[in-house]
Amino acid sequence: MKQIYSVLVGLSLVLTFSAAQADDPLPSWNEGETKQSIIHFVEQVTQQGGENYVLPAERIATFDNDGTLWVEAPIYTQLLFAFEQVKKLAPQHPEWLTTQPFKALLEGDMKTVSASGKKGLLEIVVVTHSGMSATEFEQEAGDWLRTATHPRFKRPYTEIVYQPQLELLKYLRANDFKTFIVSGGGIAFMRPITEEVYGIPPEQVVGSSVVSEYQTKDGKPKLVRMPKLNFFNDKAAKPVGIYEHIGRRPILAFGNSDGDMQMIEYTTTGDGLRLGLFVHHTDAEREYAYDRNSHVGTFDKALDKADKNGWLVVDMKKDWKVVFPFELKTQEKKWYDWLKN
Amino acid sequence: MKQIYSVLVGLSLVLTFSAAQADDPLPSWNEGETKQSIIHFVEQVTQQGGENYVLPAERIATFDNDGTLWVEAPIYTQLLFAFEQVKKLAPQHPEWLTTQPFKALLEGDMKTVSASGKKGLLEIVVVTHSGMSATEFEQEAGDWLRTATHPRFKRPYTEIVYQPQLELLKYLRANDFKTFIVSGGGIAFMRPITEEVYGIPPEQVVGSSVVSEYQTKDGKPKLVRMPKLNFFNDKAAKPVGIYEHIGRRPILAFGNSDGDMQMIEYTTTGDGLRLGLFVHHTDAEREYAYDRNSHVGTFDKALDKADKNGWLVVDMKKDWKVVFPFELKTQEKKWYDWLKN
Repeated sequence: MKQIYSVLVGLSLVLTFSAAQADDPLPSWNEGETKQSIIHFVEQVTQQGGENYVLPAERIATFDNDGTLWVEAPIYTQLLFAFEQVKKLAPQHPEWLTTQPFKALLEGDMKTVSASGKKGLLEIVVVTHSGMSATEFEQEAGDWLRTATHPRFKRPYTEIVYQPQLELLKYLRANDFKTFIVSGGGIAFMRPITEEVYGIPPEQVVGSSVVSEYQTKDGKPKLVRMPKLNFFNDKAAKPVGIYEHIGRRPILAFGNSDGDMQMIEYTTTGDGLRLGLFVHHTDAEREYAYDRNSHVGTFDKALDKADKNGWLVVDMKKDWKVVFPFELKTQEKKWYDWLKN
Repeated sequence: MKQIYSVLVGLSLVLTFSAAQADDPLPSWNEGETKQSIIHFVEQVTQQGGENYVLPAERIATFDNDGTLWVEAPIYTQLLFAFEQVKKLAPQHPEWLTTQPFKALLEGDMKTVSASGKKGLLEIVVVTHSGMSATEFEQEAGDWLRTATHPRFKRPYTEIVYQPQLELLKYLRANDFKTFIVSGGGIAFMRPITEEVYGIPPEQVVGSSVVSEYQTKDGKPKLVRMPKLNFFNDKAAKPVGIYEHIGRRPILAFGNSDGDMQMIEYTTTGDGLRLGLFVHHTDAEREYAYDRNSHVGTFDKALDKADKNGWLVVDMKKDWKVVFPFELKTQEKKWYDWLKN
């Protein structure tokens, strides 16, 4: 009898918890000012007849990727991919044995690689992301992202995405927002997995790119990726990328670093109600803690300006109940999925 | 009695006609092979379980604009806009009085303007499309397109669009296609009106562009259009533009000239069922008749290759029952709108 009673109590707790979740569009966000600000914003812009109402077509939301939607520490995912590609492609590039920073990378001398700076790292990325067709690269990047694992979390990169952000993306779309990724990362590197991971189709991804050429051989055309940078979608280039790809000013933008500052500034200085947000990485235990002098996602100037500009700084430790989808326990996750659908 | 009888006959004819239209997704297309091929294609790719089924997310359709969705003769709309802008902006550009091809244009010497070739015309377009903010240009282009009138049809450019194509765009979207414009025209020139005219939002427009810069003045940021070509979205660049903006290969592409040939080739050489179409301008009476040696929309190499490659050549005179929306008589149009909704 006692056992049955405790099962019933347990079940009722689960049901109560689940019912609360069903009403809550952002169950992995802790209650508080941040969560309320987000919900309040969405309610305001979707309230027909309200003074802050925004037509569905104008509800554009842009999200940075590295450090905003998925983990960027201890090293940008795409840079790690590029490093591994150098090792993989080395047999076809004997010249790398004598050319820096490739030589250092192949010798495992990361100090020299790092000292090659932005120019050296960009060269490694551009060279490993070109010389093949668009289709071949899509396959290569997609396969790697689904199988390579993060050094700390021991899971594929497609799984170390932020659960609160998945919920926010879904919540925005349920309110007729169109969600875009606007990242410094390679557009072709992200696209193979953005739909399955974030529900964001390739045509809603804005990013950096190499020059591509349309070539025809034996009547079979293909797009060939050339070893030349076309567009580097970072800092002041982000609003330009948004203008070129989207052609509308976002009403909500979410970033995590100084590289996102101009995108947030561009978004929040538009007319009408706008929302600019930054993830602040404050959680060394569940993820990472970094900001001002980090080698990834430096959050310094934007952090200083946030208060004055009304930008919302999301404190990962304080504001996120859950960080990763895999934290949701199996049983809870099943309930949760069931409730979501 | 006789009168009532004829009213009843008349009414029943109207109803029969209307009912036929209600079942027909393309009422402005004449019955025949072309129309059947389009409908057959759409039915095949949307038939779940069928061997040619395509997932909704992959149903990408791209349309050229000039000569495919709206009139491009006797002169490209955007070129006419650029010419008028030169006259409008001349007081602020005294240097144009002594610089070609601006001098000739201001003097009405179109022979010299024309002789300046692609380089001269491109310079006129780039110069008149830059030197202002993105917002200012959007306003300028949108206002002009809604008010300037076509020399022959005496109607705004937003009204001389092809009714059969409006129906096709709507039919495709009703079948979960995502419709894009992929045009040699300026992306920022088209975007102000594509949503109201074609139901295509700005983020689904791919076109040519000038370089833009993000600038901040007195804390107010803006995107400034620079007098430098960024991307010319024509011929072999069209598949590149598609790759960069959309990131997926279309399954249907519609053009009207050699400038669209690579886009159609790229589309139709993909795996699975694909459809490539060209508008052939054969109707001097209702629109224009031109192909091989035209100064707009040259349709020569692509016309030669169409048969062999299975590209569908749409004969405007034969295949289109109605060319422009304004041909639909008021009463018919009312019925038609009612039936469509």
